[in-house]
Amino acid sequence: MAAGTASDRAWLLRGGDVLVMDDAGTVARADVRVRGQRIVAVAPGLSREGDEVVVDATGCVILPGFVQTHIHLCQTLFRNLADDLSLLEWLKERIWPLEGAHDRESLRASAELGIAELLLGGTTAIVDMGTVHHTDAIFEALAEGGLRAVAGKCMMDAPDVPASLAETTAASLAESRRLAERWDGAEGGRIRYGYAPRFVLSCTDELMREVAKDAAERGLWVHTHSSENRTEVDIVRARSGGQGNVAHLAGLGLRGPKTVLAHCIHLDPEEVLELEAAGTRVSHCVSSNLKLGSGVANVPGLLAAGVHVSLGADGAPCNNRMCAFTEMRTAALVQKPVHGPTAMPAPEVLRLATRAGAEVLGLGDELGQVRPGFLADLQVLALDGLGDGPGGDYASRVVYAATRSAVRDVFVDGHRLVADRRLVRWDAREIAKRAAARLAEVRKRAGV
Amino acid sequence: MAAGTASDRAWLLRGGDVLVMDDAGTVARADVRVRGQRIVAVAPGLSREGDEVVVDATGCVILPGFVQTHIHLCQTLFRNLADDLSLLEWLKERIWPLEGAHDRESLRASAELGIAELLLGGTTAIVDMGTVHHTDAIFEALAEGGLRAVAGKCMMDAPDVPASLAETTAASLAESRRLAERWDGAEGGRIRYGYAPRFVLSCTDELMREVAKDAAERGLWVHTHSSENRTEVDIVRARSGGQGNVAHLAGLGLRGPKTVLAHCIHLDPEEVLELEAAGTRVSHCVSSNLKLGSGVANVPGLLAAGVHVSLGADGAPCNNRMCAFTEMRTAALVQKPVHGPTAMPAPEVLRLATRAGAEVLGLGDELGQVRPGFLADLQVLALDGLGDGPGGDYASRVVYAATRSAVRDVFVDGHRLVADRRLVRWDAREIAKRAAARLAEVRKRAGV
Repeated sequence: MAAGTASDRAWLLRGGDVLVMDDAGTVARADVRVRGQRIVAVAPGLSREGDEVVVDATGCVILPGFVQTHIHLCQTLFRNLADDLSLLEWLKERIWPLEGAHDRESLRASAELGIAELLLGGTTAIVDMGTVHHTDAIFEALAEGGLRAVAGKCMMDAPDVPASLAETTAASLAESRRLAERWDGAEGGRIRYGYAPRFVLSCTDELMREVAKDAAERGLWVHTHSSENRTEVDIVRARSGGQGNVAHLAGLGLRGPKTVLAHCIHLDPEEVLELEAAGTRVSHCVSSNLKLGSGVANVPGLLAAGVHVSLGADGAPCNNRMCAFTEMRTAALVQKPVHGPTAMPAPEVLRLATRAGAEVLGLGDELGQVRPGFLADLQVLALDGLGDGPGGDYASRVVYAATRSAVRDVFVDGHRLVADRRLVRWDAREIAKRAAARLAEVRKRAGV
Repeated sequence: MAAGTASDRAWLLRGGDVLVMDDAGTVARADVRVRGQRIVAVAPGLSREGDEVVVDATGCVILPGFVQTHIHLCQTLFRNLADDLSLLEWLKERIWPLEGAHDRESLRASAELGIAELLLGGTTAIVDMGTVHHTDAIFEALAEGGLRAVAGKCMMDAPDVPASLAETTAASLAESRRLAERWDGAEGGRIRYGYAPRFVLSCTDELMREVAKDAAERGLWVHTHSSENRTEVDIVRARSGGQGNVAHLAGLGLRGPKTVLAHCIHLDPEEVLELEAAGTRVSHCVSSNLKLGSGVANVPGLLAAGVHVSLGADGAPCNNRMCAFTEMRTAALVQKPVHGPTAMPAPEVLRLATRAGAEVLGLGDELGQVRPGFLADLQVLALDGLGDGPGGDYASRVVYAATRSAVRDVFVDGHRLVADRRLVRWDAREIAKRAAARLAEVRKRAGV
């Protein structure tokens, strides 16, 4: 498969309805022309030009690909292996030993499985947190697989981190800098680097400060967990003279539009103000937060306060789907008993899953809408299942009724990566086979 | 398609793993032999006998079909037409006018769409509440479509019911009796009748009392809504001298193992005791309860108190999926922030979706497990999608990871109704086409 040739980036998506995701909420019958990595025209009745490949989207809806802003590709291999457990058991008896037992091959297999699943489900970009070691394997999978990503190695330099994951502050920073040097801007800018200190409890303050400084100097992202769990917040408070987790991170310099905080469930009112003032990004991971019993982030409250919120599936062991459809539906439904049935309406949730995610990547002006000049990260949905209709507007149909099986075609950076529900670059059977084989080895090494 | 011939009820499901759903939690590599409407053998290495058709289930898991105990087939046509609305708007401006505008043909189309969707998603039995008129159309669709059901016409004799649905007490009872006479026991017992007074607010006490008496005399079910909404409960309390909804219904005679109460979110402690003491069935409709902002039923508390709970997707406009996988996952996840991550573990949720539902139908001894002598209501799942693995036990995989697209084959009463993800008796395209055409007519009549 020759990726990146001219001919695989000249497309005419013809005959579909376009969910533009602009401020006006435009939905229109329109054709979409793609050249190179960008959309160049969105209009009815476009005719084929040059060597364009025509994709028949008749009866389909074309919308921006989903952006998931908190993912752990390194954990995809561990799906269904850590369910119905308390958080402590989950982390200490399953996830950390399994992560620590990764080798380069198993990590690659885990990343491939996750990337493939995400693409097949309409997700075209992610913010990813790796594990501590072997992070090149994740970047290699991203480079080859075609997903857009801000990604980085997990950093864990606190004294009580398990041996298989522990690292010194200096080594953690050095490896992060090496990875940033090698991968930031790769694949024509499709891949960017994000420093990923795991969370306050597994990082020294010194590391956090250095990360904030480093990232700012290099114009890179910082991606961490915050305020997921009451116990975590209590420990942070005890350590930091009463400050909440978000406030503590802000004090260390981790704040602003290139800082992505996953979860943000347990916040002081002052922390909400801080998030808004700094423009810090909150990644809402509703399924994961429910499944681990963490709580439900007050997303309507955060949005009303002007805080930036987007969505993420987190890792496969705490979800267990890496599916934007599941996240959107759940993010909408779970707020309604508290905030009323009109809270989190479908168009708003769809915005969180697309445009808001694009803004986290710093691409609000060129990603997340189907408009000329924007990056061609697109999905074509066939909402023709018996469970999809018969009526209703597209936002309702996509958020409440559709599942990932509606995703027919997916484009990232102008490359078609899913065609008629199949991966273009990879063989799904091979990925599944490799994943099973590598998982068996990891479990043996981890004794889990 | 010749339904009911000998040859279409002689099956050997070979090569799969069987999730028996017995008390011991047995999971085993076993073949399943079906003759007529029943499973006759479950054992490894069975060889083909007589004219049996062999179904290759290699790599698949065989489990009981899902039973959903609160469904409105009459509303399937209205999916995606009433989202993000307050309950009052939802009911008065959308659902009632639309239901009232049904004719026989549109109701049939709605039922067919729902039955087809349910079967394709692994649901093999339901408890259904119709609308007020044309109920034969639903039974005809059930008879032809092959789904197992307790169903009945909706009863609404209160003074303030909208004209298109209003009926006198006498007429409501007479029509219910006629339908019970005609349909209870039809299709070799696959179809049973359940009286369906809508809820306290749209029924007179006289009707409720007569329904309880009638149903008891005839050994039939009563299926209604209870304690879904705080306002509803307040009105019931004001009307009944302070009693909660469940208590009020019990006082009218609506209690016991053949009474199915949908929702039961807002209960007094005394009502929980009453539900347990009477053995009254609670149908937990978690997605619907979230989406309409009704609240979250305390299912772990109900189960701990010995109350009988099963699951239902409710109607398409308040869900918008009629999908047991979505209900199971959501029912598990939503309890964990309150009751901890070990609450509602996957095997327990799977029991609610299968055996507990069978018990609601009065078939606990012959439905809901894959055992010799049990009715052959089965599903074959192909958990081979990239989102299904690579590891994990079946309960986790089915409850947390799988979606309805895993359903490959479905049997009800020994008839294969879904083969390789396609309906056997009906043409899905025709159903979708009819649904769209009939919906357009209903909307015109209803002015919605």
